[in-house]
Formats: sequence, structure tokens, C-alpha cells
Amino acid sequence: MRYLQYIGLALPLMMVISATAAPSIQSEPIQPLSKPLIKNPAMVELGKKLFFEPRLSKSGFISCNSCHNLATGGSDNLTSSIGDHWQQGPIRSPTVLNSSLNVAQFWDGRAKSLQEQASGPIANPKEMASNHVLALDVLRSIPAYVNEFDKVFGHKQISMQEVTRAIAAFEETLVTPDSHFDQWLKGNKKALNTQELRGYQTFKTAGCVACHNGPAVGGNSFQKMGLVAPYQTSNPAQGRAGVTGKDADRMAFKVPSLRNVALRAPYFHDAGAPTLEAAVTTMGQLQLGRSFSQQEVGDIVAFLHTLTGQQPRIVLPILPASSNNTPRPTPFN
Amino acid sequence: MRYLQYIGLALPLMMVISATAAPSIQSEPIQPLSKPLIKNPAMVELGKKLFFEPRLSKSGFISCNSCHNLATGGSDNLTSSIGDHWQQGPIRSPTVLNSSLNVAQFWDGRAKSLQEQASGPIANPKEMASNHVLALDVLRSIPAYVNEFDKVFGHKQISMQEVTRAIAAFEETLVTPDSHFDQWLKGNKKALNTQELRGYQTFKTAGCVACHNGPAVGGNSFQKMGLVAPYQTSNPAQGRAGVTGKDADRMAFKVPSLRNVALRAPYFHDAGAPTLEAAVTTMGQLQLGRSFSQQEVGDIVAFLHTLTGQQPRIVLPILPASSNNTPRPTPFN
Repeated sequence: MRYLQYIGLALPLMMVISATAAPSIQSEPIQPLSKPLIKNPAMVELGKKLFFEPRLSKSGFISCNSCHNLATGGSDNLTSSIGDHWQQGPIRSPTVLNSSLNVAQFWDGRAKSLQEQASGPIANPKEMASNHVLALDVLRSIPAYVNEFDKVFGHKQISMQEVTRAIAAFEETLVTPDSHFDQWLKGNKKALNTQELRGYQTFKTAGCVACHNGPAVGGNSFQKMGLVAPYQTSNPAQGRAGVTGKDADRMAFKVPSLRNVALRAPYFHDAGAPTLEAAVTTMGQLQLGRSFSQQEVGDIVAFLHTLTGQQPRIVLPILPASSNNTPRPTPFN
Repeated sequence: MRYLQYIGLALPLMMVISATAAPSIQSEPIQPLSKPLIKNPAMVELGKKLFFEPRLSKSGFISCNSCHNLATGGSDNLTSSIGDHWQQGPIRSPTVLNSSLNVAQFWDGRAKSLQEQASGPIANPKEMASNHVLALDVLRSIPAYVNEFDKVFGHKQISMQEVTRAIAAFEETLVTPDSHFDQWLKGNKKALNTQELRGYQTFKTAGCVACHNGPAVGGNSFQKMGLVAPYQTSNPAQGRAGVTGKDADRMAFKVPSLRNVALRAPYFHDAGAPTLEAAVTTMGQLQLGRSFSQQEVGDIVAFLHTLTGQQPRIVLPILPASSNNTPRPTPFN
């Protein structure tokens, strides 16, 4: 959607500047990321606290950052996440970086927005295993939180509405601009070396760019995993079909953004590809019906490394202390 | 030891300034914390990465910061820590804040230094559950780490010696100066209110200060838990006796620092006291043979709140990506 809108805007521009010879941003299917605009710093700061808040979980041990670790590319980089009581999650956790650019949240897009997404894991018995009543009781019992919600929202009644809005406001700031590729897009032709450029050309000509396009290099559509040949996996996830109920959506997953993809092996919703090389090879075979040569794989992987941008600089929040009335975590029952 | 050394220095000073009427730092049994001197910023930065590094655990999920969370007072504030496969730890995790001031590390003092301490949890099957061979294999497989160790230590051979030295260097910076009480000690008589001052007087006259003294307000000696009357607990920890083998050391634990104590309920090695009020009451009964009145408890608790200092401002490290050769985490086997 965003990409289509962009094209709508870009076409007239392209005609205006078509006289210039060098490739321009407008002629590329990928656009550079912009630094996030922070509209409400106080809300972002509160959202950051909540993102790092382990007391939103039943155990007092798991926070949003546990599975979307901002020290490691916004994800846990495990084959599947670890939830309350060490339960194995059903799927590989997606990165929170640049997630505001996604058409929807979760691999199956079942949450329309970051705000809608944020309430899910808190109450999921396999993830943070709390519930919204308990999570709100915890926050309401901590005077510093009550005051901070008041400052941000103008009232002291904390509901999940405010909690998830603040978390989403923080997550919207987690954008990673200024990758080598973005520098190249903006006109610094030395930002990519020959192999990286060759990789980008192959990425375009082979058709990867059909799904991985736009500012996030993906994230803006759902596609069937295993288009040309079926994807072999023991993971039972059926993707988009679970949301739409349509058989045609079976194995349709959100196309992941390739921004910072080099930071977060393993790949795919089932973590079936341990390396970028394996992921590129499989994608070529199953989505494009094409066996990439070893050199092509190496070139594309070199290009993908240029999508690693400037990671957000996060000052760890100092969370307010529990009061005597704060419900205590119960990790072992 | 540190405290005794300090007294040795302080006594001559006290004589020099004894003519001044106002209470001076030198006449108090607690001294203000100083800002940490950072001798080797590159080593501290590397140590910070390692402190937040989940790949030092078998699961790829647990880092030093999991149980010594710098967002929550340097500890997890659970009754006992959560280790690999959600194993319940034997004891309440001590805070890493101001831990450089401790006479020794762990509740039973079995590690002489922060450096010695740091290697323990990585290989403890109930904690991070890795082993030193695997942890080093992980670090050695990541080129950015190899380069950073080279920059800091002048060679590319990474051993546990360098790993733990860097972690300790980071931990040494985790000091919390400038509490209200420190401001008061330094001469700002408005920094404490009447109740807080009364609490401090009771803290001194009742004898709490016999163990909780020095810059860390504790941390500099081992004392029997249950001096006047035995401490009732289902926790099997026997304290210092496990290290010295002496029956006399049974139930002797390191006196915890009371710096920032208001941030980290529950209290005691077994987390037996859910609130500061409960902890003060129990300490009075079992260590001093004294039943504090409700007002005395309230006063002492008010004083203890003034020991919350300036928390270290930690910029979350951006950890280098795994390479294709990095051993992958194995959280579920």
C-alpha cells in the first residue's frame, strides 16, 4: 500500500528528472529510510519503559525486549521464542526494528497496528503469561507510573489503551536509517562496492524485488511461502489463512523486511534457513523457480549486508520501583 | 576491610576538623559514594557488550543483565532467579550496583573479585548453562568481537581471563552516587527531612550501623543471619560455611549493601521479607534483639529510601552479529 502510494507520487517526479543520467532514488524499487520524527517525546519515553518492563509478565522476568532485543537487531534470533516457564513459541520472533513500516503485525498480519500487536504477548499464556487486569494492577500500584501516564495522557486512569499506545509510540522510533545502501540511493556511489552492486542488480533482475521493495525492502504484502514449489517444514503455522479463513491464504506470510537482515539469522517464520546464503538459495528455488549460482548467492548476500542501518541508540530506562502494593511476580507457579 | 582502612585515614582528619560544630562526613559511619573513575573506556565498553550478551548462555536467551537487570536496580527482584530451562535458582540474586565495593562476591563470598564472579554463572548448569569452551567459541567466531578484544587487550586470543576482566571493568563503573543521603553527608542539610534524619539516628543508635556501614552501607563483612534468634527459612543455603567448611560460619552471609535498597524488594538471601518494613522489623528482632515500634520502622524505611542514588546511564550496546560459524543457541535441548 505504502509502496503503491509512493509510486503514485514518484512517477511524475521521474518524468521531471528523466534527463539526468545517473540512477535516482525515484527510479529504484527501494527507497531510503528517513530518521523517525518524534512527535511526543514524553510518550516515547514512557513507551520505552513499558517495552523494557518485566513486570508486565507473570514471571516478572520477560519484557517486550526479551524477544525483541534491541541489542541484537530487535529480535532474539532463536529458532522460536522462549515464553513463560520456558515454553517454546510457535514461530521465530520478528524484529521490532522498522516494524512501523509493516502493512500489519505478526507473521500472519493478525494485528493491524503496532498498538494492536502490543497487547497480545502480555496476555498470551505461552509468552508473557500475564493478563491485562494483572498487568494494569501492577502499573497502577506504582506511583511513578501513575504520574507518568498522567503527564503523557492527561489523566491517571491507566488502561491497555494507553499502555499499548505508548509502546507503539516507542516502537515507531525504532527505524534504522543511513545504511550503505541508503547512502548509495541518496547519491554516494562509493557506498557500495562492485560485488554489492552486482548483488543488487541480481536481486532486481531475478525478481526478489517483486516482494522485497519499498523503504523496508519488504513488509508491505503477504505472499505464499513456496510459490513455485511447496515449502517443506515441520512447523504447523499456516500463515494468513488463520486470519482470513481462506484456503487460498494457506502458507501466505507477511514478506519480512530485509532491513538489517544480516543481524538476525536464522531466517523464515520457522527459522528453517540458518544463514543468509541458505535463505537466498531457498527463496530462489521456491519463490522464483531459479537455482542461483554460488556467485549469485554471494553477491545477493553481499548486497543484503548493505541494508544494515544505524541502530537506534537506546538509553536503558530506569524503571520505577514496585510499591508495597504491587502484585509480586509469580515465576514458579 | 575497606571500611577499616577508611577509618584509619579518617581519624587524623577528624581531629583536624573537630573544631567545626556541624556533623562532618568524617564523623559519620557511612561515607558518600564517588563517581566511578573510568580508566579504560574501551574495556568498559567491551565489558558492557559481554554483560548484555545472551550468546554467552546455552540458550542464547540469558545474559548477565537478565538476573542483574540495570533497568531495575541491578537485580531481577524475584524470590530466586530464573536459569536455563526456567530452573529455579537457589537464592535471591544480589544487585550488581556498587558490587565493586563488596568485600567478596556472591552471598557466601565464594568469589574474591568481580572478575572471579563473572565466570561462574556462564558455566553454571542452573544459570546460563553454557561452558567456557562453548562461550569462547561463540566469541571467537564473531569477527567484530575478535577485533574488539584485540583493540582492548592487544591480542586476538580470547580467553575467559579477558572476558571476565572486561565484564568486571564494566561492573566497576556501576556506582550510584549523589543520593539524598550523600548530599546530606556532603553538607546539604536540606537533603533529608525530619523523618529521614530521625530514621538515620535510630539506624545508628539501634546498632544497624554495626554491620551496615562504609560507603556501601554494608557489603564489607559477613555476619550470621539470626544472631539473637535463629532465622526461620526453608531455603537450604548455609552461607559462608559452604566456603570455609567451618561450622561457626553456618548461616553467615555477606551483609548486603543498602545502597538503592528501596529499588529491590524482596529482601534477604531467601527473599523472606517482601517489603522494607518487614526486613527492618526482622533485622531488629533477629540481629539486635529489639522490637522496633511502627514509627521506628517507618523512620528507618524513610532513611533507607534516601540511599537511592543516581543510577548508571547505560546506552544499550549494539551487539555484533553472529557469523555463519557461530555455534547456534540450543534453548530447547
